[in-house]
Amino acid sequence: MPLMAITTVGLDADDTLWHNETIFRLTQDRFRALMADYAEPEFLDARLAEVERRNLALYGYGVKGFTLSLIETAMDITGGQPPGRVIADILAAGREMLSHPVEPLPGVRQAMAELSQHYRLVLVTKGDLLHQEQKLAASGLGEFFVGVEIVSEKDASTYDRVFTRHGTGAAEAAMCGNSLRSDVLPALEAGAFAAHIPYPLTWAHELADPPLGHPRFAELASIAELPGWLSGLG
Amino acid sequence: MPLMAITTVGLDADDTLWHNETIFRLTQDRFRALMADYAEPEFLDARLAEVERRNLALYGYGVKGFTLSLIETAMDITGGQPPGRVIADILAAGREMLSHPVEPLPGVRQAMAELSQHYRLVLVTKGDLLHQEQKLAASGLGEFFVGVEIVSEKDASTYDRVFTRHGTGAAEAAMCGNSLRSDVLPALEAGAFAAHIPYPLTWAHELADPPLGHPRFAELASIAELPGWLSGLG
Repeated sequence: MPLMAITTVGLDADDTLWHNETIFRLTQDRFRALMADYAEPEFLDARLAEVERRNLALYGYGVKGFTLSLIETAMDITGGQPPGRVIADILAAGREMLSHPVEPLPGVRQAMAELSQHYRLVLVTKGDLLHQEQKLAASGLGEFFVGVEIVSEKDASTYDRVFTRHGTGAAEAAMCGNSLRSDVLPALEAGAFAAHIPYPLTWAHELADPPLGHPRFAELASIAELPGWLSGLG
Repeated sequence: MPLMAITTVGLDADDTLWHNETIFRLTQDRFRALMADYAEPEFLDARLAEVERRNLALYGYGVKGFTLSLIETAMDITGGQPPGRVIADILAAGREMLSHPVEPLPGVRQAMAELSQHYRLVLVTKGDLLHQEQKLAASGLGEFFVGVEIVSEKDASTYDRVFTRHGTGAAEAAMCGNSLRSDVLPALEAGAFAAHIPYPLTWAHELADPPLGHPRFAELASIAELPGWLSGLG
């Protein structure tokens, strides 16, 4: 393989730059407690996962759709007659998720500062448009990015478009994130490099097998390893 | 004023290219009927408007936030104990809004076809990311646009960014839409031309006074007048 000049680095946001799945799981714990009189936790989780899967094509990713799916699950589980306090508490939980403070994960700010000296950094994320913009602003990381792309789906054509728009094409770009399914596999398919930085929790919908042995793939233990891996590529 | 070469035309989507407010109003009628035992229509509308206004900064624009605001209003009005069928019906109404068929308004397809021969067309719209993409796909109008920008807020900096990204800057661009507040005033502020094409219904949040006498502003009776107005500019 010839030496490549990486010009552009795409970064996932949720669970790569800041906590996200943890906040969803905490809300789900609260939902379990709220519904404890009606359903065992495992049964409740399975029903919620089913409702979320059914709604994904219509609601997309993000807190608002999740809140609506929680309400729908509560309806299902209570035979269509949830106590008012359940609905009130779900609405409150949704609002709290949307206004949750955002703090960069350990090592993120330093890695961004270093990377931004050598590459064009582009944030590539799914979720609610306004909420993702607000989280980026609250994180204080906005200054490091030359582009922000909030997208409804991450597939190969997404990365092709994003790296053409903000860089010099996918072949000279690397994508980095915690989801093999959304960040790594479609970026490789688009011709980019890709690094996987696992987060301790992964939403079932995002699970996939790592492309071990792929020449443009790396598994990193933390974002602190990203600058070193990139500089070793070209 | 020197002759200007307009290179880029921005178009709003909801209530400019296809019906939107009508669908919200129909859902609101349904909500009134659903809550008839609890509140007079005027009182209900006022409470809903208040809840929407309060939630706007957190939920942004779009059907999912509207659905959550309907549920919250139903909670308020029923003293926190809405009948289950009310919640079920609101969830169903939200899903129906998200899967509502999309048909271009009269004259839109022909105007787009004509405009696309002379200008770069950019769709600029607020709302839920996934839903707006789905509506554009369902409308069959996607082929006419060189760029699609789904944004959380339409202000002068939005138009500056969009017309720089997809065109030759705001000074050589024109924005066209049904909202004076979102489509016309901030586009003029950014230095672009702007045409207002009223829709019979306007959400209270979008109302503003027309900038009568502004040299780069026009009030058009329908989108069919847009190509003629643009070609008269330079």
